[in-house]
Amino acid sequence: MRRLRTFLLSNFEPIWAVVQKVPFLSRSINRFIIDTAVTASRNRPHPFSTRSSYTSWASLTDRRYFGRHLAAPKRRDALPDKAEVVKLFERPAEGGRVCPKSTLLFPVFAQYLTDGFLRTDMEARERTTSNHEIDLSPLYGRTAEQTDVLRQRDETPGRKGRLKSQELNGEEYPPYLYEEDGSTIRDCFRDSDGNAILDPLLGGDKIKGKGFERQIFAVGGDRANATPMVSMLNTLLLREHNRLAGQLEKRNRGWDDEQVFQTARNILIAIYIKIVIEEYINHISSTCFKLTADPKVAWRASWNRPNWMTVEFALLYRWHPLVPDRVAWAGESVPSEEMVLDNRYLTAAGLEAGFRYVSAEEAMALTLFNTPGFLREVECRAIGQGRDLQVDTYNSYRDAMSIPTVTSFDQMTGDPEKREALKRVYGTPDAVEFYTGLFAEDVNPNTPMPTLIGAMVALDAFSQALTNPLLSEHVFNETTFTAWGMEQIETTHRLSDLVLRNVPTSDFPDRAEAIRMTRKDWRRSWVPF
Amino acid sequence: MRRLRTFLLSNFEPIWAVVQKVPFLSRSINRFIIDTAVTASRNRPHPFSTRSSYTSWASLTDRRYFGRHLAAPKRRDALPDKAEVVKLFERPAEGGRVCPKSTLLFPVFAQYLTDGFLRTDMEARERTTSNHEIDLSPLYGRTAEQTDVLRQRDETPGRKGRLKSQELNGEEYPPYLYEEDGSTIRDCFRDSDGNAILDPLLGGDKIKGKGFERQIFAVGGDRANATPMVSMLNTLLLREHNRLAGQLEKRNRGWDDEQVFQTARNILIAIYIKIVIEEYINHISSTCFKLTADPKVAWRASWNRPNWMTVEFALLYRWHPLVPDRVAWAGESVPSEEMVLDNRYLTAAGLEAGFRYVSAEEAMALTLFNTPGFLREVECRAIGQGRDLQVDTYNSYRDAMSIPTVTSFDQMTGDPEKREALKRVYGTPDAVEFYTGLFAEDVNPNTPMPTLIGAMVALDAFSQALTNPLLSEHVFNETTFTAWGMEQIETTHRLSDLVLRNVPTSDFPDRAEAIRMTRKDWRRSWVPF
Repeated sequence: MRRLRTFLLSNFEPIWAVVQKVPFLSRSINRFIIDTAVTASRNRPHPFSTRSSYTSWASLTDRRYFGRHLAAPKRRDALPDKAEVVKLFERPAEGGRVCPKSTLLFPVFAQYLTDGFLRTDMEARERTTSNHEIDLSPLYGRTAEQTDVLRQRDETPGRKGRLKSQELNGEEYPPYLYEEDGSTIRDCFRDSDGNAILDPLLGGDKIKGKGFERQIFAVGGDRANATPMVSMLNTLLLREHNRLAGQLEKRNRGWDDEQVFQTARNILIAIYIKIVIEEYINHISSTCFKLTADPKVAWRASWNRPNWMTVEFALLYRWHPLVPDRVAWAGESVPSEEMVLDNRYLTAAGLEAGFRYVSAEEAMALTLFNTPGFLREVECRAIGQGRDLQVDTYNSYRDAMSIPTVTSFDQMTGDPEKREALKRVYGTPDAVEFYTGLFAEDVNPNTPMPTLIGAMVALDAFSQALTNPLLSEHVFNETTFTAWGMEQIETTHRLSDLVLRNVPTSDFPDRAEAIRMTRKDWRRSWVPF
Repeated sequence: MRRLRTFLLSNFEPIWAVVQKVPFLSRSINRFIIDTAVTASRNRPHPFSTRSSYTSWASLTDRRYFGRHLAAPKRRDALPDKAEVVKLFERPAEGGRVCPKSTLLFPVFAQYLTDGFLRTDMEARERTTSNHEIDLSPLYGRTAEQTDVLRQRDETPGRKGRLKSQELNGEEYPPYLYEEDGSTIRDCFRDSDGNAILDPLLGGDKIKGKGFERQIFAVGGDRANATPMVSMLNTLLLREHNRLAGQLEKRNRGWDDEQVFQTARNILIAIYIKIVIEEYINHISSTCFKLTADPKVAWRASWNRPNWMTVEFALLYRWHPLVPDRVAWAGESVPSEEMVLDNRYLTAAGLEAGFRYVSAEEAMALTLFNTPGFLREVECRAIGQGRDLQVDTYNSYRDAMSIPTVTSFDQMTGDPEKREALKRVYGTPDAVEFYTGLFAEDVNPNTPMPTLIGAMVALDAFSQALTNPLLSEHVFNETTFTAWGMEQIETTHRLSDLVLRNVPTSDFPDRAEAIRMTRKDWRRSWVPF
């Protein structure tokens, strides 16, 4: 059934192009693809969480813990040494594999997106600081207090509902977080006791004293400064928020700062979810049919249940292998590691140029032996987290996702080197742990994903994006967004739509086409049955 | 449609008795009744809350505010003076109307039940301190910290998983809250800074210094000591919890205190929900068909959405008129007001006798001119809260519940005195405010409820009880409750089942029949089409 679905949906592009144009057919196929992706596994609420090994009222309600797709197994065989496992991930000093489908914009978007809700609590790794929703927390903050200090809070006409921002080289960016000494957080981002209100910058220790020099921004997320590319996405959304606020204020004369802000946020979250599905998920998807973010699909769905991030989802989204060793940026080849926590690359290039650079750069392949050296430690921690939280085996998760379990390593990969290494480390496929198994599978045709990651990403993406309260039956309407706001949502499909709106003067040619997650040279391959 | 449904379901008792015995028919009718009750109005999520007059990310996610079935209307006509309105509620000094169907056990249960989740924040009445779930917070507390101090926390075999309790006159009760001075809270219920951990006793000022003398218990809810009748329900559930814990401990030798406690709580919440539907809602219901608490009904339902208490639900459940002026207790006629915050009545009589007294006492009718004098102030505050939170008119809510709006006062009540008074205060039916309208309608045949309250109670009860996470598809099973626990849930239908289990030695005859919400002398009436 699964094979037939893939076969039909991945081939026959001209037929799908026709189907796409017939509204009734298009709506039905869209619903079918989403429904079958989500119902591959069981519904929420998940009976288990990382809070305890059995179900309790606390485990069912305490959202500071991760949910679990599968309970911790009662008995676990001894696992291979972590040092041996991490070797399976290491990219050779020379080379590494390239992804035939994705530009670097794809992993950059994935990083920004998931940093918003896949949030391991660094103090207690069985816990999460997630709000469990796509709420644009990297832009707006996780808490009301954080949102508050990021806002302008100004009732002056022409300034209502805005997020704080600054102009650099004639373009709008978030404000700086640090004073000129590079380590003191600016007063306006601290509470009356002097404590920082925004979450501490992740990895901030590494650039101690250089926060100002590196132009670290005051933003909602502790990872939204991680690289100038991630910062670029956040800046784009900040500009769009302020643009929406400006228009809303003009069109609704009686509104105060609060209503302008809240309505702009409503619209921007809905726009963001559209891009998540219509650009990002469509890029991931191997199907010819292009999915649309139709909120109606979820309104009566039996899988429309409250979101709750799972530990498996948090693990499977560590896409370190996608990161190239070097990035072509402003005519230079810059080592990726150097770009970490340094927004100067962004402000020097400008927003649109940044988007063009990452869209021209190839992403690497999501597979073993492909994690860049500087992310080795992060990979180690991921393996450790999977073990500490007693995540079940790779094969158990294939089974849970209605995918046949594997009985030999050649069902996982056609690459003799990978097979050999897996055999040496794990002995049998049944012994392969979840995290390794995810990346051990070969990447499928027409998608940047291996099988199990692809299935789990689709399930979690749809069941969480489309169940957003702003998309719900009695909320997704003009009362919530205004008629003009609905129009903004309807006419946005891709990041390039936002760039074009928010970098108005530009001498770049071919603007919309140059900003893309799918490589220009990518060609669909035929998928045999 | 609504009339036909009522006509068919309220009459033809012998036919329904047969239907009830055919499992397939019985399951389908059960689902039909519940589905039609819930879909009379729109699904959650509610687009509006008491947080702001428009929809925002905060209003959709900040559960410290009430949801709203209807938005605040843009324009409101001037409302009559509150003092005039409260007069419509006052019970005459002599008399008051009796409810033909209900015993006093019915309002006592309603009070205990709703105090668990309909919780106006007394500091800011647009807010709520509710967890929005049926979680037995009056027994276990609203927060983890509260639950913690109510637990024995003892790993000694034979004492695991228990709630703290004491023996009085040979029976088990919750521990006392106060020291012998009557106003100092006992150390074990305070944190290391000496602050009280349990919510302050509601109305505690009135009995200042008498907390010990009146045997106030340390319990989860700030209202669970409100009367000895409410305390009696809470005591029954405490005993059942400790009984379940004792059995679980014996049957699962490896379990620690925590697992015994959590599993007993799981079972008790499920048992409680069964009683809510199978005894309490069936008592309210005018139908011949007896509903069963079948969790499956909700598993695929389009109304299975996260609970969120609404301000309308909080208002419509203020059933002060049901309270009699005096209660026959242990051979004496005691003024209701005297019983407030005094558990001596309960401990002197004993648990089973208490249940028998309230089951022998008649409840009063849920209607205007029937609120006892000592609750006049509370009634005043309810009217004020409805106005402050800009709740829409009575007719708007009939419409929202798919009930035809009324155009003349005789469509609301057949009582000339009530019609006259309503006309004097409001002028036209369209001007009647929600709170007054609820109680102005005549009580319907075969139920203690007027029309609008009945419809809204059914909607909220089912859509909230059956969507409890413990009843969800992958949680309601032996893994969560144990096989023995499932059996306990299956074999419990009424409060008397719990009383019989937890007051083992007793010389009361006819025990099960004597504990009841429906009066022994109640007879079903024919409902014309």
